Amino acid sequence: MKLQTIVLSATVLLSTTIGTAFAQFQNAEKAIDYRQSALTVMATHFGRIGAVVKGEAPYNKEDVAKNAAIVAMMSTLPWQAFGPGTEGGKAKADVWSDNAKFKSAAEKLQLATIDLNKAAQSGDLDSIKKAFGATGQACKACHDDFKKK
Amino acid sequence: MKLQTIVLSATVLLSTTIGTAFAQFQNAEKAIDYRQSALTVMATHFGRIGAVVKGEAPYNKEDVAKNAAIVAMMSTLPWQAFGPGTEGGKAKADVWSDNAKFKSAAEKLQLATIDLNKAAQSGDLDSIKKAFGATGQACKACHDDFKKK
Repeated sequence: MKLQTIVLSATVLLSTTIGTAFAQFQNAEKAIDYRQSALTVMATHFGRIGAVVKGEAPYNKEDVAKNAAIVAMMSTLPWQAFGPGTEGGKAKADVWSDNAKFKSAAEKLQLATIDLNKAAQSGDLDSIKKAFGATGQACKACHDDFKKK
Repeated sequence: MKLQTIVLSATVLLSTTIGTAFAQFQNAEKAIDYRQSALTVMATHFGRIGAVVKGEAPYNKEDVAKNAAIVAMMSTLPWQAFGPGTEGGKAKADVWSDNAKFKSAAEKLQLATIDLNKAAQSGDLDSIKKAFGATGQACKACHDDFKKK
């Protein structure tokens, strides 16, 4: 197989929508493993943008754009795995006792990552820095209220 | 904020390319956590398509298409975290001692998930079943050679 063929056929277009609807998992353990996994992948790619924003890594438009696109997609995933009966892991009981607030925090993050993705695709580093900060605030706000220390 | 506004601004377009280039991780533990997380998310969404293919869940075009798009995107991620010095986890030593074969297996999976995604977007259940089987074979082939029992 020619390399060209691989690269051409390898472009995957994803269209995801934000939301906080629950999905079915076999059991609570599977749900916890899934949501922690999705958050780990998101945090890894967010951290790579952070290194650029903090000046620890050089700015490369393509890399930041790719990382931001992954962050935006990943930010839509974890919430489906916080359904009833999946208490545990690092989640505070407040996720379930104040679920409307939790869902609102999850939506704020998803919207923030969409802005970050737009900024990253535009290639304007100042916009990226601003959107990165806002996204970090959305992460922190949710962690403060809903993640165990 | 109106719901409509959220939905409209929530469409995220991702373009990813297949590959097996290594990324930098803080340490081996972080790399292992990342790759296992990416594989967990991929397996979860692949399993949801599997439930449809096996007749355990009803066929819904939009759901299968979304799951297949996530699988295709996730299939590009784990391999960057199998760099030199990240031995461990469930990975056999063969990942590093026969790295060319491992990378080839990783590329085969990525190509199979692109076909699965195409089939899922088309909405033809027979094509989805065929592509699901081929993707499962690509998973299995790599696990047989490179994953600890």
